[in-house]
Amino acid sequence: MSREIAEQPGALRRLLEEGAPRIRAVAGAIAARRPRFVLLTARGTSDNAALYAKYLLEILHGLPCGLTSMSTTTAYDARPDLTDVLVITVSQSGGSPDLVASTRAARRAGAITLAVTNNADSPLAEAAEHHIDILAGPERALPATKTYTASLLALYLFVEALRGHDGVPAAARLPELAERILARGEEVRELAGRYRFAERMVLTSRGYGYPTVKEAALKLMETSYVPALSYSGADLLHGPLAMVDNVFPVIAVVPDGRGGQALRPVLERLRERGADLVVVGSQERVAEASAGFVLPTEGVAEEVQPILEILPLQLLAMEVTLARGQDPDAPRSLAKVTETH
Amino acid sequence: MSREIAEQPGALRRLLEEGAPRIRAVAGAIAARRPRFVLLTARGTSDNAALYAKYLLEILHGLPCGLTSMSTTTAYDARPDLTDVLVITVSQSGGSPDLVASTRAARRAGAITLAVTNNADSPLAEAAEHHIDILAGPERALPATKTYTASLLALYLFVEALRGHDGVPAAARLPELAERILARGEEVRELAGRYRFAERMVLTSRGYGYPTVKEAALKLMETSYVPALSYSGADLLHGPLAMVDNVFPVIAVVPDGRGGQALRPVLERLRERGADLVVVGSQERVAEASAGFVLPTEGVAEEVQPILEILPLQLLAMEVTLARGQDPDAPRSLAKVTETH
Repeated sequence: MSREIAEQPGALRRLLEEGAPRIRAVAGAIAARRPRFVLLTARGTSDNAALYAKYLLEILHGLPCGLTSMSTTTAYDARPDLTDVLVITVSQSGGSPDLVASTRAARRAGAITLAVTNNADSPLAEAAEHHIDILAGPERALPATKTYTASLLALYLFVEALRGHDGVPAAARLPELAERILARGEEVRELAGRYRFAERMVLTSRGYGYPTVKEAALKLMETSYVPALSYSGADLLHGPLAMVDNVFPVIAVVPDGRGGQALRPVLERLRERGADLVVVGSQERVAEASAGFVLPTEGVAEEVQPILEILPLQLLAMEVTLARGQDPDAPRSLAKVTETH
Repeated sequence: MSREIAEQPGALRRLLEEGAPRIRAVAGAIAARRPRFVLLTARGTSDNAALYAKYLLEILHGLPCGLTSMSTTTAYDARPDLTDVLVITVSQSGGSPDLVASTRAARRAGAITLAVTNNADSPLAEAAEHHIDILAGPERALPATKTYTASLLALYLFVEALRGHDGVPAAARLPELAERILARGEEVRELAGRYRFAERMVLTSRGYGYPTVKEAALKLMETSYVPALSYSGADLLHGPLAMVDNVFPVIAVVPDGRGGQALRPVLERLRERGADLVVVGSQERVAEASAGFVLPTEGVAEEVQPILEILPLQLLAMEVTLARGQDPDAPRSLAKVTETH
């Protein structure tokens, strides 16, 4: 896990240099078909990447989107009319039978189908009409890390290209910023000490940062086994806030931009409740919290910040796991390719 | 909370008798506009009702659906093209400013708009072109109970009417079955004892039962403050399963139908892991678990079972809360109308 976390700057660079032209070509072919709606299909870590794409598509592109409830097809044989619908399936392995089946069903139902995977020879890549290879190289640790950030960047470049933009310049600094963040492992190790005995945790963000906290919660659960709940700030106020008291650990990802602005009233409520609040965000937001990790995001567009936000949280999941004497590379009871049907 | 839970059979009956004709009329007007895609917008308990509607629309009606990420409109000013899109907003109070704003924005963007609320005079009912009143009567306890089941039934009747069916016959037995379930409070009180000291909990289901476990988790968190994670069975296998060990409490809602079939491999994995598994479902499924609550669903279509499944879980949330000496009617830090922006 440690090695694959460290490979991320290189994987991002490769995608920007070698992957971008192919992504542009795929986006051009799909744009010519003029999709009117987008459905995103994925599970686990890839589902969080798909959620990020949903924000991009809705905000940057003005395309209404939905996340697929896969059982509607695989368990209930739903046969929706998918004319004019772009169905994007995200899967690092490209091997889960239900994703392959639902992609085939979507193609038969008239959808434009796109697979985003880390395996160009996978059944999923073959089942979809179009394929984007995220070029992250083989991932061997069970917790997905580099395939997550590579999926985010591939999806960002794709959505920008779909609307005729070149996403490369806005993303050009990411590999170097990622290196800077990953060099600060010692800071994260110190933060991890705080969660040595945590028995539950809430993570919250808003807007583009919301997929980050869902992914961070998944990493924490599958490696350290800390039950971690993730909410958009607004949803947190609609009920779960009642749980949070003065010994409840909360991690907030505060994007530098509109999502972070929208989150501020939530942070105030959390401070009023006396929550232990750790912030991943700007110097200013971290200074208002119990502790935090300052993200170097000056001059980085809010929509690509998620590619950086997750990095300290991947490290955190690993460090909490190590502090508990567990093996982050082999969480109990999980397999790398999860065969759900 | 106790009184409003008990009012549910009456509320369901009222909706079937007095509400159905109006729902049919609204559905007829919307069907004439031939929506091609549906976006559902809601928060908290209503978001779980919206998720139920998503399953109905995709499975029964073949309409592709998405759940709105509201911040795309309210924080990022996304302006999607919503021609041919039906936007359904669900809110018991009809008062949350962000829901009103996003409904207005959807209407300006060309959507067909429908509000489903418990308040015909609310700003939301006024903002939408069409309105369905769920007729549940004033709800005073903070945890929403009768407005949840009334929303489910209203949405079921609406989706059936949208495709030219009359949903009333399939739902006719629900009030009486709900009465039978609610008369078994003593059984639930006994189950609740098991969770007296639980510090976290996982709930899982598949298909139509998935909104039920999301809603049950929300009830447990906002009343008893037990951190409760909810997953579709397939998503549970993609990571969070690693958390579950022999002292981890798991509640599974096993629908009598295809969703329950699809859940069986997940139940096997949970038993292998030694989880404390409590099942809400058929006699046969309960017999295989550590404990459970047998649901009377013989002859009840799977798509309306969620209206029954949640009832013992509402009672459970209340009983766990009372056992802990807390007040289910007034969870700390929550207001009945949550004003998110």
